[in-house]
Formats: sequence, C-alpha cells, structure tokens
Amino acid sequence: MSLLGFAWDASSSYARGAALAPAVVRGLLFSEASSPYSIDGVDLADAFGDRHFPDLPEDAAEARAIIAATVAAALKAGRRPLSIGGDHSVTYPILSALKAAHGPVNVLHVDAHPDLYEELGGDRWSHACPFARALDDGCIANLVQVGIRSATPEQRARSAAAGGAMLGADECDRVPWERLQGAVYVSIDLDGLDPAFAPGVSHPEPGGLSTRELLTLIARVPGEIVGADIVELNPERDIGMLTAGVAVRLVKELAARML
Amino acid sequence: MSLLGFAWDASSSYARGAALAPAVVRGLLFSEASSPYSIDGVDLADAFGDRHFPDLPEDAAEARAIIAATVAAALKAGRRPLSIGGDHSVTYPILSALKAAHGPVNVLHVDAHPDLYEELGGDRWSHACPFARALDDGCIANLVQVGIRSATPEQRARSAAAGGAMLGADECDRVPWERLQGAVYVSIDLDGLDPAFAPGVSHPEPGGLSTRELLTLIARVPGEIVGADIVELNPERDIGMLTAGVAVRLVKELAARML
Amino acid sequence: MSLLGFAWDASSSYARGAALAPAVVRGLLFSEASSPYSIDGVDLADAFGDRHFPDLPEDAAEARAIIAATVAAALKAGRRPLSIGGDHSVTYPILSALKAAHGPVNVLHVDAHPDLYEELGGDRWSHACPFARALDDGCIANLVQVGIRSATPEQRARSAAAGGAMLGADECDRVPWERLQGAVYVSIDLDGLDPAFAPGVSHPEPGGLSTRELLTLIARVPGEIVGADIVELNPERDIGMLTAGVAVRLVKELAARML
Amino acid sequence: MSLLGFAWDASSSYARGAALAPAVVRGLLFSEASSPYSIDGVDLADAFGDRHFPDLPEDAAEARAIIAATVAAALKAGRRPLSIGGDHSVTYPILSALKAAHGPVNVLHVDAHPDLYEELGGDRWSHACPFARALDDGCIANLVQVGIRSATPEQRARSAAAGGAMLGADECDRVPWERLQGAVYVSIDLDGLDPAFAPGVSHPEPGGLSTRELLTLIARVPGEIVGADIVELNPERDIGMLTAGVAVRLVKELAARML
Amino acid sequence: MSLLGFAWDASSSYARGAALAPAVVRGLLFSEASSPYSIDGVDLADAFGDRHFPDLPEDAAEARAIIAATVAAALKAGRRPLSIGGDHSVTYPILSALKAAHGPVNVLHVDAHPDLYEELGGDRWSHACPFARALDDGCIANLVQVGIRSATPEQRARSAAAGGAMLGADECDRVPWERLQGAVYVSIDLDGLDPAFAPGVSHPEPGGLSTRELLTLIARVPGEIVGADIVELNPERDIGMLTAGVAVRLVKELAARML
Amino acid sequence: MSLLGFAWDASSSYARGAALAPAVVRGLLFSEASSPYSIDGVDLADAFGDRHFPDLPEDAAEARAIIAATVAAALKAGRRPLSIGGDHSVTYPILSALKAAHGPVNVLHVDAHPDLYEELGGDRWSHACPFARALDDGCIANLVQVGIRSATPEQRARSAAAGGAMLGADECDRVPWERLQGAVYVSIDLDGLDPAFAPGVSHPEPGGLSTRELLTLIARVPGEIVGADIVELNPERDIGMLTAGVAVRLVKELAARML
Repeated sequence: MSLLGFAWDASSSYARGAALAPAVVRGLLFSEASSPYSIDGVDLADAFGDRHFPDLPEDAAEARAIIAATVAAALKAGRRPLSIGGDHSVTYPILSALKAAHGPVNVLHVDAHPDLYEELGGDRWSHACPFARALDDGCIANLVQVGIRSATPEQRARSAAAGGAMLGADECDRVPWERLQGAVYVSIDLDGLDPAFAPGVSHPEPGGLSTRELLTLIARVPGEIVGADIVELNPERDIGMLTAGVAVRLVKELAARML
Repeated sequence: MSLLGFAWDASSSYARGAALAPAVVRGLLFSEASSPYSIDGVDLADAFGDRHFPDLPEDAAEARAIIAATVAAALKAGRRPLSIGGDHSVTYPILSALKAAHGPVNVLHVDAHPDLYEELGGDRWSHACPFARALDDGCIANLVQVGIRSATPEQRARSAAAGGAMLGADECDRVPWERLQGAVYVSIDLDGLDPAFAPGVSHPEPGGLSTRELLTLIARVPGEIVGADIVELNPERDIGMLTAGVAVRLVKELAARML
Repeated sequence: MSLLGFAWDASSSYARGAALAPAVVRGLLFSEASSPYSIDGVDLADAFGDRHFPDLPEDAAEARAIIAATVAAALKAGRRPLSIGGDHSVTYPILSALKAAHGPVNVLHVDAHPDLYEELGGDRWSHACPFARALDDGCIANLVQVGIRSATPEQRARSAAAGGAMLGADECDRVPWERLQGAVYVSIDLDGLDPAFAPGVSHPEPGGLSTRELLTLIARVPGEIVGADIVELNPERDIGMLTAGVAVRLVKELAARML
Repeated sequence: MSLLGFAWDASSSYARGAALAPAVVRGLLFSEASSPYSIDGVDLADAFGDRHFPDLPEDAAEARAIIAATVAAALKAGRRPLSIGGDHSVTYPILSALKAAHGPVNVLHVDAHPDLYEELGGDRWSHACPFARALDDGCIANLVQVGIRSATPEQRARSAAAGGAMLGADECDRVPWERLQGAVYVSIDLDGLDPAFAPGVSHPEPGGLSTRELLTLIARVPGEIVGADIVELNPERDIGMLTAGVAVRLVKELAARML
Repeated sequence: MSLLGFAWDASSSYARGAALAPAVVRGLLFSEASSPYSIDGVDLADAFGDRHFPDLPEDAAEARAIIAATVAAALKAGRRPLSIGGDHSVTYPILSALKAAHGPVNVLHVDAHPDLYEELGGDRWSHACPFARALDDGCIANLVQVGIRSATPEQRARSAAAGGAMLGADECDRVPWERLQGAVYVSIDLDGLDPAFAPGVSHPEPGGLSTRELLTLIARVPGEIVGADIVELNPERDIGMLTAGVAVRLVKELAARML
Repeated sequence: MSLLGFAWDASSSYARGAALAPAVVRGLLFSEASSPYSIDGVDLADAFGDRHFPDLPEDAAEARAIIAATVAAALKAGRRPLSIGGDHSVTYPILSALKAAHGPVNVLHVDAHPDLYEELGGDRWSHACPFARALDDGCIANLVQVGIRSATPEQRARSAAAGGAMLGADECDRVPWERLQGAVYVSIDLDGLDPAFAPGVSHPEPGGLSTRELLTLIARVPGEIVGADIVELNPERDIGMLTAGVAVRLVKELAARML
C-alpha cells in the first residue's frame, strides 16, 4: 500500500481549504495521539512506509496529470493507493490511473452529493463532476453511492443511465453488496457523514451517516479494496481536529483492509 | 405554503437568543450554500415565495396577537404556515389561529421538554407552557410528544389527563401514528435533537434524537401536515452555523410535505 | 441614511460565505441583544427605518448593476448609503453610483489587503480588484488604505501611481487625515482587524487592528462621511457571533456619523 | 482575605449562566494549570485558605441577604472579601455589607454598561441596577466607571448627578485616580473587556479593554483595595475556558493587592 | 449514595485537564440549567446531599490513599460511591475500597481503551492501567468492557486471561448481561462515547457510542449498581460545556439507579 | 535559511499536542491561503526551498541528538535554522548546535514563562528548562526575556545570576536592545502572546503580547538574526487554525529577516 496526499482544492465550487488536509492528517496519523492499531487489532506500525505527497501546481490539468502519475507509479510498484485529498476532483485522475492498470473497478462512493454534474460553473473537472467523468471514461463498472441527500434530477438521471445505485444516509442496510465484489475502490467524501461527526467540511449537510455506520460499510465490502480516498476535509472549519481524527481513523481502517 | 418568521424570545426562562434565529435561517436558506431540493428530490425553487417576518414588540400579549394574525392571514390566503421561531411560546398563538380556521389538529411535538407547565416564573405563556395553553383552549385533538427527557410529575399528569402520548428519544419506533392522521401540526424544538446534532440551543439536554431520526419522523407522519414550526434555535450558542443548517434542512423537508 | 444589504459572494477568490452576512447582521442589529445607542450616546432608535436588501442573481454584472441602482436610488432620495456586504466586490458598484451623484470621493479603506489587483483568476471585478476599478473610473480622489499587510509589488505600484497612501496596521497614528476632508467614503473589510477580534472572515491575517483602533479611525475622519460599507464577514467561520457583533457595532458608529 | 463565591444569576436580564462561574473559576484556580504566583511574583500559595461559597436560593431578596451576611462575616473576621459572581446584582449586597462595616467606599467599576438603571423589566435589583441601588443607599463615595460603551441618557444623568466619572474603554489613561484613594472597592464585569479577550459573557460588546489594560488599572489603584468582585462570567458561552482563565488571573492580581 | 469528586490527573499519559472536571460537573449539576429529575422521572432533589470532594496532593500514592479512604468512609456510612474523576487512575483505589467492603464486584467498563496495560511510561498506576491493577488484586469478578477501539495485543491477552469480555462500540447489543448480576460497578470513561457526543476528552477516538446507547446500557444493567464513576472529562477541550452536560446527565441516571 | 520542523512534545509537563504543529504550520505555509510576501513586501517565494522535518523517536536524549544534528547540518551548509516546534525543549539542542558553530549568541526569548527551572518533575531537559540548560552550557551571551508573567523566585534568581533581563508583557518598550546586537537568536513560545491572539497553546496565560507587538519586536532586533524558533503551538486546542496562522506569519517575518 502507498499513502498518497493530494493537496489540491482549486476545483472547489464554494470554499477552498481542502488542500490543507493532507498535511494535517499526516501529522496526526504519525503523532503520539494516534494508536498504531486498527479497531480490530491489525498492527499498522509498518503500514505507511511508502508515502508520496507531491507538490501540485494551481493549473488543474497539470495537477490531475501529476495525481494520475503518482497513482500509476504506486500501482506499477505493486502498491495500492490510499489517498488523502484535497477536494473531490482528485478522484477522477486516480480512477483513470486505476483503469489503465486494472480496467474498470467497482466503486463505493460515500458522500452527501452524487458529484455527477456534467459541469459546474463551466468546469467539467470540478469537484462536483468526478464520477461523471469517470463514468464517461469507463473507469467504473458499478457505481454505488451512499449517503446522498442533495441530488438534482440531472444527477439522478445520470446515475440511472449508468445503472448506478444511489442510496440515502438512512439506507446503509440496503447497499447492493453483490455489485461490490472483485476489485473495489472506496471514495469517501467526509460530508457523507453527518456534520455532528464531521464538522470540518466545506459543505456540511445535516442528516448524514454516523462514523460507525461508515466504518461498518468499509468492513462489509465483500470485494478486494484496491484503492481508496478520503476527501473534502477542510481543516479551516474543523473543531479541535475532530474531523481530522475521523480521517485518521478511516485511513487506518482502509489500510487494514488493503495490506 | 407561507414561510413565516417570528423573532421573539422574551418568554424564555433561562436565556434569550432565539429571536435571532429567523434572520439567520432565512439567510442560510436562500444562500448558495443551500440546495433547492429536498432529500427525496422535491424541487423547492419556488416554494418560499410567500414570506412574512413581522416586527414583534417586547410586549408578550401584543406579540402573540401579531403572530396569530400573521398565521390567520396565511390560512385565509389558502397557505399553510411554516414558521421559524423564536422561542417555543410562539406555538400557542399559531395553534390558536389554526384552531380558528381548522378546528383542533393532531400535534406531533418533538422536544426534550414537554412544555406543559401551568406557568413558569409567574408567566402562563412562557416558552415552557404553550402546549398547556393549547390543550386548555381545545386547539389539540391528539398530542404526541417525542424526545422528552426532563418531564416533571406535573407535566406527566397533564399529558395523561389529556390522553397524550409522551415518548422518550429512544422510542421513535413506538410513535402512535394512528393518532397523527388527518390534519397534523408538527412542532420541532431543536433541543429535541441531541446536542451533538444541535448545539445551538438554550437548553441542551444530552440523549436526544439524531437528525436522521427526526427526518424519518417527518417523513412518516401519515396525516396531512397543515402547519409546522421550528423553534428554540439560539444562534449565539451555535457552532459554525451547524444548528442553523439543521433548521434549514428541516424547513425544506417540512416544505416538501406541505406543498 | 439608508441601510443596504448586498448578499453577494460569487466574486470571492478563496471561500464563499460572505453572502450570509447581511441577514445575520440585520438580525443582530434589531435584536434585544443590541443597544440602540452609539458609544458616545447618539440615539439610533430611528436611524435604520429605510432598509433595502435586494435579491441578487448569481451573474456578477447583473448583481453589480442592481447594487449600483440600489445605491443610486438611496442617493436620489437624499439618503446616504450604509451597506452591509457581501464580499468586497460590492464596493466598486457602490463607488460608481456615488461618483455619478457626487463626483469623486475621498476613500478611507481599512483592510489586510489592498484589493488593487488588475484581475484575479481572470476576473477584473473580483473581490481583490474593486479599488483598481474604482481608480480606473475616477471614482476616488484620494485613496487612504490602513491595515494593509499582504501587498504585492503590483498593488504597491498601483497605489503609488494613484498617489494613494498605504499604511500598515501599526500606522493608525500616521493616517494623512488632510486627504480625508470633504466627502469621505469609508470601506471596512473586517479582515483589516486582527483575527482575535474578527475571526469570522474568509482570509484571516494576523497582525491587524484592534476593534478600538478601528472605532477611533471612524471617529477621527475629519470630512463628512457620505457613504460606508462593512464587507467580508463570513458567518460560517464566526465564533459565537463575535464578528457579527463587531459588524453591528461598526454599523452603529458609522450611522452615528452619517445621520 | 476571604475568597467568596456567589452562584447567582436569577437577576439577569437576557441570559442566565453566570451562576456557573464560581465553581469553574474555583476549580481552575486550584488546579495544576494555575501558577501560585501573581505576575509580579507575590506568593499566593496560602492566600485562599478562607473560602465561602454559600448555596443561594432562587428568591432574590433571600439570596441578597445571604450574600450580605457572608461578606459581613468575612469583614467581622478581619478579612477582605474577594468575590466571584454570579451576575452583577451580587455587588449591591456586597457594597451594603461593606458600608455597614467601613462606611462608604470609593468604587472602581469596569464594565461595558453603567448598571445604573432605576429598574429593568420591573426589577430594581436587576443586574442592570446595582450601582443605582448602592448610590441610593450611600454605599459609594466616588464612583469611577471605566470601559462604558452602552450608556443610556438616563444612566449618564444618574452618574452625573452622583458626581461620578464615566469613561470609555479608550480612556484608561484618564482615570481620575485622585478619587480612588483610601478604601477602594473594585468591581469587574468581564464584559468590560473586549470579547476577543473575554468571549464567555452574556452581553459581549466589541470595543472593550484588553486584559493587560485591566491588569494595569488594578495595579495603579492608589488606595487600599478593601474588597473586589469579578462578575458576569458565563461558562456556557466560553471558548476553551479562555475567559475563566482571565477570571483566575484577575483573582490572583486582586488577591496580591489585598493580602 | 455519596457524590464524590476526585480532582486528579497527574497519572495522565498525554494531557492533563481532567482534574478540572469535578468542579465543573458539580457546578452544572446544581445550577438552574439542570433539571432535578432523571429521564424516567426519578426525583433527585435530595439525592446529592452527601458530597465529598477532597483536596488531593500531587503525589500519586498519597492521592490514591485519600481516594480509597474517601470511598471507604462512604461505604462505612452505608452509602454507595458515585465518583466524578479525574483521570481513569482514580478507579483502582475506588475498586480497592469496594473490594475491602464487598469483596470482588462485577464491572461494566465503557471506554475507547481497555486500560489494561501492565505499565505506561514506567507508571504501573497510570490512567492506562487501573483495570490491570484491579484484576491483579482480585477486585473484579467479571470484567465487561464496551466501546473498545484501540486495544493492543497485550491488552487483549490480559482481558482473555482474566476471562473478560471486550466489545466494540458496535456491539452494545451483545453485552453478556448474565455476568453483570449481583453487585455491579460501572466505570465510564467519556471517550467511550463518540467525540461528536463528548468532544471534551483528552483522547478523542472516533467511532464510539452515542449518548443514548450509553444511557441504555446503564438502564439495562441487571445487577445492583453499588458504585460508579465518570472519568476523563477534560473541560479545557470541551465545547460550550457540551461534554460536561453529558457527565451531569450520567450522574443523574446512575444516581437514579443507586438510590 | 533552512526551514526545520521538530515534531516533539514528550518533554511537556502538562499536555502534549505540540508535536502536531510542524505538519500543520508547513501545510498552511505552502497553501493558497498564504501569501508569499512578508508584511513589508519581501518576496518569500523562494525562501523555503531547503526543508528538514526529521522523524523523532520518543526517547528524549536521542531526539535532542537528532535535533542538534539537523541544525548542525544546516549551519554547515551555510544556512540559518528557522525551526518550528515542538515543545520548548527543542530549543536547548538548537542552541547547543549554534554554540558549536558560532559560539554564544544573544537570545531574545518571548514567552509567558521563563523556562529556567533546574528541573521539572525530575526532568532536567523538560520544556520548562531549556534556558537553564543553555545558560549552564554557555550557549547564551545575553538572555532577554519578554512577556514573562509566571516567574517563580527560583527562576528570577537564575535570570539575575546570569545577568539576564526579564520583562513583562507590558514592557515591550523597555527591551534592552543594546544586548541584542551581533548574532541574535529569537525563540518564540506562542504563549507569550495573549490567549486572545494565540488560543492554541497548552498553557494559555492571559495578559500577554498582541501579535503586532510581537511583530514589532522581531522588526526591531538590532543584531543579525542567525536562528529562530516558534514553539508550543498545540493544534488540538486551536480555534479555526487561528494560532497556526499566527505561526505562519511569524515564520514569514523571521524569514524576511534571515534571508
């Protein structure tokens, strides 16, 4: 496994700040405040030796290229990419690199928003669009979205056209797990959680998952997790590093599944 | 539907501040940070065209008269009142106006407190008394209270005498829905939620509902929601507009049921 | 005097949120938590009777046109505009309207940033550019900037070319008051204050003015204050309405000078 | 010296919460987080041996009687009272007891508000009235108020009639020290400080003193400090015990002057 | 029942602050903000008459001796000890005193951490070790731990060797209640709760219990609760006294079971 | 100049957390939220190319050795060390390395505490002792301390014995600048600032410097700044990254003096 950090938020539509997350999460992950075990006791002391946190330019296309190349390099070295964003726009270049290596993957996407816009504010690679682009490019075999609570008709239609499953936050027990077998990619936008659990995001949306429901989803994925990302942490809006702590716990639990 | 705002908190027993809520909720509701869809996809872009946020004097009786008149005017125009308080004392004049128009209604009341005191600190129209007054005046056919966790013997007796149902926060699945048919009024004191979800209230009481449980209650009301209020948001004690965001989401979900 | 509110933040470069400010400030200004006197005892009970808080579209040019028209209408009615933003881009259309009515004015601009960019991110009307545009259009006779602590060479050059004075936060006692006689416009970006006093802004920059230093600046303006704005309050990042309270106090002290 | 605690806030006009202060301040004062020295090095290890934190009933007259009796007992034992409030209504019974023992004292009163109302909401002993009552009863020889920034005409007139000095927060260097000789009582409402330094109060008012300005005032009192109080800390609105820490520091610096 | 307070945090491994908790909890418990009823309506007005909050020295062995003696005195007087910590190291001397009086008890321990280290940083009585010491000394018949999410192999082995049950936060419905009959001691580390519900702790660990799940555990204990503690509240990291409010609610619900 | 980061807090006496600071400060320094200019306009775009943030073990002696070696390497390469701590114990190995290269330096030390204990809790290299150790070893020619407000007699004696100057926070205009000529090292403990400006520290002490006073001190140092550190930022107690922002500004202003 490779721990990757993508400090990029210039494709955000409302507020930047997510670019601060990789440094904060990395700092907390390797501090004394953080235990080296997963909840179930997997020893992670040696899990994060391979780390890549590239500098990223303000130009979006260049940044995406670097992100894709960083993931491709990890995959070539036989390592699964576990990425800390950044805004959600980082997921499209990650999925592109995964497709090049693995072919299409099944995706479990946890989020308050479907991120399936054709474009937002004229930007087709906005943080509101990564799954639209990834579907366009054939990166995704099955798209399963959980926690969605602000879908537009356009986005519902795009999910339906792609045969995707779009579930609300109250439907964690209806996830079509049969679609998440084989190679699975997990993409977690922290605003999929309720703001009580994850206040440090740019788009808080009440009525989301609890941290424990999210941990259960990760544990239940029947397939093999070949890559994952945790995105949209905005440390400028966090309270006492609470949301950063959630991100660190997610890194550990995903890592325990990806070792 | 009419969106009403009642900036009134002079009947509060411990701390004022709730009068700030209508302006804050209204501002957030109509901002770019807020999506124009309900969770289930109802388009609310045109839902809030009719708005009335009257100035209210410090005199309580006069304020109640203006509140009742504002609601009566909406009802006369064929619009259902969706009100943003203010402290909970605003609910009694609202229910009075509803009774005048509709006769008694069934009430779903979500709160940490039953608000059934005969009087508090000598005030019979205190924010601790609205349901006592509404029962006295025959405004309520069935009273169903959910989330209660600080009832006094006096209040339990009054509920029992009125044939009401008083449920704790852990009894959301035992709501007697059969009593909430026909014309239903929904009154939500935000301290019915756990302070983790709604810290911005004057009387935080741990052990409350989650936001999702509350959304589910709203969705499950079998009757027709003919009016609703969201009260006791105290923006001076809120954290990063988190509780205001919950109020905005409740406004949308109630509106989606009331269109 | 007219109290105006411009809920606009789509010209922000890093984070939106300032569009929430007019509703929050207005709510607090007219609440029981707010005294109706200026610090020096001017009675403001009747000061804010004329209020205009227009709805603004997402299109920037249209929004600017509405802002300018709102200010022009106030001026035509013989009222001085006291505006609550919104991001700093609202100041250019305000100054345009003032110029049309009064000719060029002298400007006291309090801010951490000079907002004198030719363009930012391709936008010549960004919140980073209003004083560049206003200088271009001849709206400003003398430009005096106080609190500046992140000027680029480009911005320093533009100020110098315009004969402006650019002072740091530690130079409040060196303001060239002789340039601020006659008709004076006061534009206050709340990030001119130190983040200790005004945490609720999108671009906190340590080392700023204290609230009292800012109040003293307002009191000392030798000319006649013919218009003023308070911009860049971001309620989503405020703590306990602290920064909103500062904005309310500034509204009152400016109003006391403008009656 | 006696350390007294008066957990009373039922005379508050807007928000209760100040009754929580004595317990919080006492806890912090005696914790490892707190050094046993004053800023100038006075050893306070043995200063706080005599403590009285009486239970107080909800009835205001009874509560005032207990407060006065507690202070009288301390004075009889030859100890100077250093009191932690509670809302500002506690100061009147304290001054009454001091007058009975000492005759009138000179008072240094630091506050955003003059607290000189004849009555508020029908209550002549409200937290907005203690200095009116104390003047009525002849408890005060000279009244010097500092930090005032929301005086009404009524309150200005009462101060003038009593020959008092009313200074703003920007006038700390104009205190008429000659009036504060002999026996001096210091009454500190924490909202005299700017909310940046003391956010945990019920009536934050921007534009106040810095903590250091307040410490300098205490140090400069030329007379003998025969009693003091620190009031209106509202722990429910504090941030990370910041304001409680200010109160603890004030307790120490006042104690160092009163030993 | 006796209400005890142990202001001790010198055995903490990462951050002190828990010593501030007894004063804060006690203050809030006896304030107007707190209702005198349990959730189910038990009248607690007279429940807390017997209180002991001893001063504790910095020396750990002496502090433990005082804690044990305080508990022993309560037991001798026929009162059950309900203790507010302090860090978790206070639980070992409490259990020692209970053993001396009652023999071994069954323990329900709610926590994110098992606190079963042989030693931490060279300290065998660290707050990470109380249950190891209590097992060593035969104070515990059955040890049932709930909410655990950072156990090391060493701690898992020690629990297993002692025949203990170690459950995660998602296993509240699998508690082996048959082991919690007879005399039961309940020890609640507030970090057993999710940080959303209890942010004011020194070791926040996402993925914990909700407040309601914890209240349900207390209600379901089949045995007789002969003693209880609530530990590791760190008021310096609390938000608006939210976690203190949870502690107060736990005190009430435990007291209602212990009267 | 070299930018160094020392993520070490195991020598802290009350609360750990400072080890999180280097990652957070570095992340913010290189983000879009941060301008690349000093307040006076020095271009820092290329200033921070040389960065060393070594991993540090829990063993204190080993950690100090690595810190000293990291500084020595920078000095050998002709670069001045600008370090981000970490608790204040990191300053002693830094000064040791400087002495080996330069001989004794003059030190400007800004702090609430003198950090001159012979030992604390048995640890002679505690974060409360670095200047005692550095004086013992002859690393310091003149020691000038500013902002001190909790000195013990022991610490005052040690300063006096070393011919040091110990100034309070209200004595910024009495700094003996003549002692700070030649090679000067600047060590900034963020708790030297008032908690209003720097809440994110482990030992907040009211009555400190303002951010601007501190910036002025840095600007006025007459000698050549050959090294500097910024320590004791505790991100777990910060509010909205406010204190981290202060640290970033200090990094820039110190760098502008050290280029």
